[in-house]
Amino acid sequence: MTTKTIDPWGSVLVEDYTKLIKDFGLEHFSHYLELFPSPSRLMRRGVVFAGRDVKRVADAIKKKEDFYVLSGIMPSAERIHLGTKMVIEDIRYFQDHGADTYVLVADLEAAAARGITLEEGRKRALEFYIPAYIALGLDPKKTTFYFQSENKEVMHLAYEFAKKITANEFEAIYGSNEPGKMFSALTQVGDILYPQLKKRRPGIIPVGIDQDPHIRLTRDIAARTKAKYGFVPPSGIYNRYTPALNGKLKMSKSEPESCIELPEDAKSACKKIKNAVTGGRDTLEEHRKLGAVIEKDMVFELLKQHLVEDDSELQKIHDDYKSGKMTSGELKQIACEKMTAFLADFSTKLEKARQNVDKLKFVAFN
Amino acid sequence: MTTKTIDPWGSVLVEDYTKLIKDFGLEHFSHYLELFPSPSRLMRRGVVFAGRDVKRVADAIKKKEDFYVLSGIMPSAERIHLGTKMVIEDIRYFQDHGADTYVLVADLEAAAARGITLEEGRKRALEFYIPAYIALGLDPKKTTFYFQSENKEVMHLAYEFAKKITANEFEAIYGSNEPGKMFSALTQVGDILYPQLKKRRPGIIPVGIDQDPHIRLTRDIAARTKAKYGFVPPSGIYNRYTPALNGKLKMSKSEPESCIELPEDAKSACKKIKNAVTGGRDTLEEHRKLGAVIEKDMVFELLKQHLVEDDSELQKIHDDYKSGKMTSGELKQIACEKMTAFLADFSTKLEKARQNVDKLKFVAFN
Repeated sequence: MTTKTIDPWGSVLVEDYTKLIKDFGLEHFSHYLELFPSPSRLMRRGVVFAGRDVKRVADAIKKKEDFYVLSGIMPSAERIHLGTKMVIEDIRYFQDHGADTYVLVADLEAAAARGITLEEGRKRALEFYIPAYIALGLDPKKTTFYFQSENKEVMHLAYEFAKKITANEFEAIYGSNEPGKMFSALTQVGDILYPQLKKRRPGIIPVGIDQDPHIRLTRDIAARTKAKYGFVPPSGIYNRYTPALNGKLKMSKSEPESCIELPEDAKSACKKIKNAVTGGRDTLEEHRKLGAVIEKDMVFELLKQHLVEDDSELQKIHDDYKSGKMTSGELKQIACEKMTAFLADFSTKLEKARQNVDKLKFVAFN
Repeated sequence: MTTKTIDPWGSVLVEDYTKLIKDFGLEHFSHYLELFPSPSRLMRRGVVFAGRDVKRVADAIKKKEDFYVLSGIMPSAERIHLGTKMVIEDIRYFQDHGADTYVLVADLEAAAARGITLEEGRKRALEFYIPAYIALGLDPKKTTFYFQSENKEVMHLAYEFAKKITANEFEAIYGSNEPGKMFSALTQVGDILYPQLKKRRPGIIPVGIDQDPHIRLTRDIAARTKAKYGFVPPSGIYNRYTPALNGKLKMSKSEPESCIELPEDAKSACKKIKNAVTGGRDTLEEHRKLGAVIEKDMVFELLKQHLVEDDSELQKIHDDYKSGKMTSGELKQIACEKMTAFLADFSTKLEKARQNVDKLKFVAFN
């Protein structure tokens, strides 16, 4: 185990994704891209920048073998933000390629860490989070849901796994050995391996890089319980953060002016886009002459990560903007229009998903 | 919190019970004895040597207010030994004085720490441990049972409580910060407070001194969650260990020749008694002249702790033995006869309790 740690509970600046890949022993996803059929927009554009043991999952897709994708919902807030959308798109990619899908509601974590009662967590999940996930692309017909607090088997695994790791090892992975973090982390390990109780099989967990400790711990524990359980070590894929509109690394609701929330009304979103950090030059003359500094442009990043599905359309915007033919104002106008359409579509789908929430498939616990 | 620690998972020699009381901030039980109506044999004879916040429970008894007693069964072995009997007698005392009684089966702990599957733990509990507890005096009509692995509320409490204590505080209490110990300890805290979810009320937990860390942690956590839960800090009473027949501090199945197991056949038990360490003198002449060194005599201790209920009968044995009128051989003969009767009675009651195990009252979980 590496002693490099990244804290899944804190905020860290990740300046250099390539360095991260090296430090954490991850795979460059681009090296494996061709193994994945019809790669998603996020994969093609390097938003999915890293992986862990991804060939295992690509093989399962190729051979049409059973595998699963799993993600969690933390029902602690009233709204989500655009960054969450990427994880859902990752899930959708694997759903479309045959993955048995699990989405759990981390109501225990929301209760312990944020003081959200289990009842309130359940309500928020059913009335907002799960419908929002479906509105963002999750296929409810292919998804099994459960509430962490109801899943005794997950809690049993967490309890058992706690004996399989020392405090020092835990600290090496997480940079902390606080009891609350141990419960949280080991319960997540239980969640990640839970779908294998039914059947041993590869699994893929799409996460932000700050969640990698959970993947590493799970893989360690799968190795240590091999004789008893024979769990297949789960694989991970890692998304870049959606940057904040002010240019900071990670979009966050703590800076609402630089964060597109979901739901949000189009007028408010467009205003935020208008105030975003761009790569436009100080004067129009200079812009026409030098073109935009596109890698510093948060609006272009927004289009690339979220709003333009078609690669050739994005390429044209890129070329026009980079050459100076397109101004920041025009780029923002495009982003505003696309964002408006996206938000309207999201609202419609959210409402529809809400009305169908009673048709969801939940794990039946005895 | 004191930094003195005693490891509830290890074996420690406790040479000086008075020093322990001081080091751990316990109460001398003898100072509170008169508050308890019709004190039990173990209370009267100082086997119950210490307490924590016992007046709270004495008051509840006096005022006929609701309170509870709780204990756990670790279904990890095939048999128990005589030391376990004392805890059951403590429970019985409080049952007889109005306590709502909870006995939980720590099947999660047995699974994680000893590799006993939940199914095997359940089987052992129902086929042996619970019937043995009843045979030793537990009143099944006044007792509610549950399996830790089925009690989601206990697991939820453990998860939540983990955020209420730091790793340093945990280490100060337990002398360890291993993840497995945290899960085990915090789940036990959940068990101890669980009966208060129904109603806030005093509770008494009879334990060996090595289990005091759980009582202290529970009291700390009750204080820290006061605003949310308002749990009454639980009280503890502490039994001396039943010494091994070879004179070691604590009877243990790891030294079977010095340990009376339950069940055990009378012939085997009497043989062990015959080989026990006594306070008899080297020669009969010397014994008659000087009398027995009674405080070193493991057979007398056995009579005192377990086999002679009547105080005046014990006093007569004491006086005769101490004066030299009674020999070690005669003392052993008395112990053998009483042990034989006790073991026969235990077997009969065990069999009866086994046949009635389907009538027990378990917590109904949804």
